[in-house]
Amino acid sequence: MTRAELFAQIQKKSSFLCVGLDPDLAKIPAHLLSEPDPIFSFCKAIIEETADFAVAYKPNIAFFEALGAKGWETLKKVEELIPADIFTIADAKRGDIGNTSKLYAKAFFEQMNFDSVTVAPYMGADSVTPFLEFEDRWVILLALTSNAGSMDFQLIRDENGKPLYQSVLEKSKEWGSPENLMYVVGATRGELIGEVRKVAPAHFFLVPGVGAQGGSLAEVAKHGMNSHCGLLVNSSRGIIYASSGKDFARIARQEAVKLQAEMSVLLEQYL
Amino acid sequence: MTRAELFAQIQKKSSFLCVGLDPDLAKIPAHLLSEPDPIFSFCKAIIEETADFAVAYKPNIAFFEALGAKGWETLKKVEELIPADIFTIADAKRGDIGNTSKLYAKAFFEQMNFDSVTVAPYMGADSVTPFLEFEDRWVILLALTSNAGSMDFQLIRDENGKPLYQSVLEKSKEWGSPENLMYVVGATRGELIGEVRKVAPAHFFLVPGVGAQGGSLAEVAKHGMNSHCGLLVNSSRGIIYASSGKDFARIARQEAVKLQAEMSVLLEQYL
Repeated sequence: MTRAELFAQIQKKSSFLCVGLDPDLAKIPAHLLSEPDPIFSFCKAIIEETADFAVAYKPNIAFFEALGAKGWETLKKVEELIPADIFTIADAKRGDIGNTSKLYAKAFFEQMNFDSVTVAPYMGADSVTPFLEFEDRWVILLALTSNAGSMDFQLIRDENGKPLYQSVLEKSKEWGSPENLMYVVGATRGELIGEVRKVAPAHFFLVPGVGAQGGSLAEVAKHGMNSHCGLLVNSSRGIIYASSGKDFARIARQEAVKLQAEMSVLLEQYL
Repeated sequence: MTRAELFAQIQKKSSFLCVGLDPDLAKIPAHLLSEPDPIFSFCKAIIEETADFAVAYKPNIAFFEALGAKGWETLKKVEELIPADIFTIADAKRGDIGNTSKLYAKAFFEQMNFDSVTVAPYMGADSVTPFLEFEDRWVILLALTSNAGSMDFQLIRDENGKPLYQSVLEKSKEWGSPENLMYVVGATRGELIGEVRKVAPAHFFLVPGVGAQGGSLAEVAKHGMNSHCGLLVNSSRGIIYASSGKDFARIARQEAVKLQAEMSVLLEQYL
């Protein structure tokens, strides 16, 4: 999917919502456990009820990988189920030397058909660029994450006072463009989103940490929105586990609607 | 496997050789392609011929993942085939927020039975510590890698002149001990291995980059060996693709023997 196509979807749905698919056998409604593939049934119901309000889905690969080969089969089926006009993110945090990263890219872009993969920057250029060689596919590079551990290394300042995450932004802008490179920017540090926006004015940000992790949607939009919206705000647990009963998909829809309604107002305000 | 058990294997075999399993359908001998699972047949033959000289095997997960669910089935079969007294490394470069890293740990330590996983440090403590909660299992954390891109971020110096990889070493030593934490330290920078050894005197290092990537085994041993050997030196392509003919496994054995013979001398010299 191109940036223009993604922006068109955002405008059409008045939404920049990404629904995170973290399907956990210990958390999904009990009545699904008798299905032949409970994880698939869960994701299918969530997707069907939220697709009108989401512009992206983000399966968290670990939740599938923990189930072994069967989990990978389920992941492929889930990816195939997502409507073609919705952006797909393989949240995999991959990254290795060049020939290995190329194989990870093939896993998600050829063996499956994801629009994008999240990638970790520690190993530098040749760990990231193989993913960028696939046409109309995206790298979503970790810049400033929303977890507690993000403070361990990402904020270390170099000899000129520049934090590591900023070096990651500046260096990686040489590898890709706003047409094939996004950044993960956590919402738990509202003011920092504005700092990241200064360094990367045109790129999309994938923003986790709204909701369960405490970030504010209004703050994110205020500091992060650009002329192409430039934001995909993810909600996982707040939507998919809003109810653990038989009504889980309907309640997930309600939560998606609430977020989309807020987003609609913010798009009016800032775009 | 414990550190004492690993060291006992190193002494018994006079070897600190890790054989990297990067099975690529485009590179394995053509006669294997008619087998029901060519990748498995290839790995099986390599393992059978090299097990006498190797103390570790390191399947590169990307090579299996690129084949989808079938690749994951093959990976599990390959892991099960490796003799129990040989250390196994899932070279996966994983790392995510806490609850997600825990699932990656389950994938490799419970769903499969690997002794260790390679982990990327960018997301900090809570992305690494979930792997350390499994008894007798190891994290092998990226510190200083052997690829060109390692220079993009790993060598950035902080306000006190300390390079990032050193901050990774110092900080992560608080998360694990030499009994459950190793580091990836590339061999292409011989003198830097000595620098890393100063910061982490007791930890094992997994050293890629000897052979195809140009590192010298003698330099690695000179700068990196400690009283428990403290080194696992990996060779992938130099062994597994030494021949593309029907004799590939026998030639792989020859190459493993050569490296083991060199290692035997170095162990005599430094241990």
